[in-house]
Amino acid sequence: MDTEEIKVRPLGVIHTPYKEPEGMPIQGRFAKEIKGTITIFPEYVSALKDLDGFSHLILIYYFNRSRRAELSGRPYLEDEKHGIFAIRSPHRPNHLGISIVKLEGIKDNVLTFTEVDILDDTPLLDIKPYVAHFDARENIKSGWLDKHFAKGGIPRRTKLAK
Amino acid sequence: MDTEEIKVRPLGVIHTPYKEPEGMPIQGRFAKEIKGTITIFPEYVSALKDLDGFSHLILIYYFNRSRRAELSGRPYLEDEKHGIFAIRSPHRPNHLGISIVKLEGIKDNVLTFTEVDILDDTPLLDIKPYVAHFDARENIKSGWLDKHFAKGGIPRRTKLAK
Repeated sequence: MDTEEIKVRPLGVIHTPYKEPEGMPIQGRFAKEIKGTITIFPEYVSALKDLDGFSHLILIYYFNRSRRAELSGRPYLEDEKHGIFAIRSPHRPNHLGISIVKLEGIKDNVLTFTEVDILDDTPLLDIKPYVAHFDARENIKSGWLDKHFAKGGIPRRTKLAK
Repeated sequence: MDTEEIKVRPLGVIHTPYKEPEGMPIQGRFAKEIKGTITIFPEYVSALKDLDGFSHLILIYYFNRSRRAELSGRPYLEDEKHGIFAIRSPHRPNHLGISIVKLEGIKDNVLTFTEVDILDDTPLLDIKPYVAHFDARENIKSGWLDKHFAKGGIPRRTKLAK
């Protein structure tokens, strides 16, 4: 296995109402009414065939606004520090982000989606279909996060502050 | 937004019993007894802090064995062609893969996991915790895949043939 650099390139651009991190939800499920769009570059439009049968997508994108690569961080939900692999922070070694979003429609090379937790102008690296039979797991232990959801409902601090 | 190349680098190596695609399950849930390991490069070990509280991980990795970047493909489950964004094929523009795996243990810089659908010697690009409250979605439509799971149970053709 080589340990050399790997090159990827944007396949499109994600547009959202969130120009800055402040006010953005930590996960799109906490602000369901907000809409985003993805503009796929014209050369990749044929890759969208049959994607409209899926209700949810997994987006892989580049955290292009982060200038830091850290090995640990404090998540927004609490003040404890955790390893970067145990949190979803953008300030991670390869700056790769993933979000599960709800597909609302596809027209030509533009996808509309809800459940948005992505900044405007984010480079899209891949789209994968969210498949219930593969991805919706049961009997999950979610580490340090479970205590924040123990009462049911949505915890405080689910939107980014300054 | 720039459309230039983005560089990422391996943070470790994924080891599995699957030296070749033949016989590998299309998803790790279809061969639950198989074990894999991830060797994290020493400089990233501190990023693992508190990851042991999670039962499942989302691995992002590089399909380093694929030499093709296609815009559509035939999935193993059926003979119909679909856009590459609607299937999980490795032969995709940026060769980025994701798998949800079950974490069995962490010792120093080595993670052991089950629910393996990854080839041996695959470069690891990121680990994210699988969070029930974010990632286990309900009321999912899984497009062309749903018909293969309509009867419950596991469909035929869930292991890769030649």
